[in-house]
Amino acid sequence: MKGLLVVVSGPSGTGKGTVCAELLKETKNLSYSISATTRQPRVGEVDGENYYFLTKESFEEKIRENAFLEYANVYGNYYGTPLGQLDERRESGEDILLEIDTQGALNVMNRCPDGVFIFLIPPSLHELECRIRGRGTESKDSLEKRLSSAEEEIRIGKKYQYVVVNDTVSKAVRQIQAILLAEHCRKEKDWKIEEVLKK
Amino acid sequence: MKGLLVVVSGPSGTGKGTVCAELLKETKNLSYSISATTRQPRVGEVDGENYYFLTKESFEEKIRENAFLEYANVYGNYYGTPLGQLDERRESGEDILLEIDTQGALNVMNRCPDGVFIFLIPPSLHELECRIRGRGTESKDSLEKRLSSAEEEIRIGKKYQYVVVNDTVSKAVRQIQAILLAEHCRKEKDWKIEEVLKK
Repeated sequence: MKGLLVVVSGPSGTGKGTVCAELLKETKNLSYSISATTRQPRVGEVDGENYYFLTKESFEEKIRENAFLEYANVYGNYYGTPLGQLDERRESGEDILLEIDTQGALNVMNRCPDGVFIFLIPPSLHELECRIRGRGTESKDSLEKRLSSAEEEIRIGKKYQYVVVNDTVSKAVRQIQAILLAEHCRKEKDWKIEEVLKK
Repeated sequence: MKGLLVVVSGPSGTGKGTVCAELLKETKNLSYSISATTRQPRVGEVDGENYYFLTKESFEEKIRENAFLEYANVYGNYYGTPLGQLDERRESGEDILLEIDTQGALNVMNRCPDGVFIFLIPPSLHELECRIRGRGTESKDSLEKRLSSAEEEIRIGKKYQYVVVNDTVSKAVRQIQAILLAEHCRKEKDWKIEEVLKK
């Protein structure tokens, strides 16, 4: 059976990096999507394992070919999620995890409506605000702007299929694992029935 | 938040009784729906706990009032699932488990589209056939009929949201628990977001 495309997203400061790292460690048959990039490989980085390393020309050609699920240009280097590897790995039965920001996730919803979209939120707006304030790098104006956009960003979660509160990392991981197991029971139902009838 | 209505169904011989009993024992906040009946209470049975004991007249009045999710007449006594208690208990946050046959479940789908419909299937058609054969009570003709209807009954599962293979009881229970946890993350997403924004 085709693996799941699992998209975990949420407002910045929710701790999705920590949750996703723990989730990958604790979950069989789930691995990160491999990004393509035009930046130079660092020592020890392996093409097709850490990244797909592409030239600027070939990256831009792939953009024109619509070969990326999503991509961005960060400080002059391109980063993107190639559709080809996603499909191949999913066809071989792997579940693939994409950890992306809320804007990227909305684009992926349009391109891959069969994805499993999970929105991670902090236990309270207050706590998210404390974290943003805690950085101490914002002016009063910019702080106000960030705080009001935090509320807006949390509301985006209503467009997702699932909302998980990041109360504790282990609880959030357990809930995401339950969602993956349930999605397998949902998406594979017709296939399971035909398999059982063959035996 | 309103509790879930969890409907577990499947062809006879799948072992849904065993799975549901274990599920109830192992799951917080989940309890059986209480049936109404016109049969006499047995010693020790408590009205509103084991059953709602009704007179034939009041049961039939409730049928006319459309107050049952489903009902049947078994050997002269009525049995039914009263909608009132379901709604009340769900409103108070309880998840309610209904273990019913495939025909009953299809009716419940029409009446309660917000239910969680889980279809339990045996690991193989062959095993289900062995169990039916094992009873040794069927004529050859009736055996053929039961076997072909077993296949049909398994196919009904395609109409459900989830299919769980009853490979081992503990694995099936774990999968149903995952489905319930995931459904809470799905159905409560807007509510969770509003709660987090209040804090």
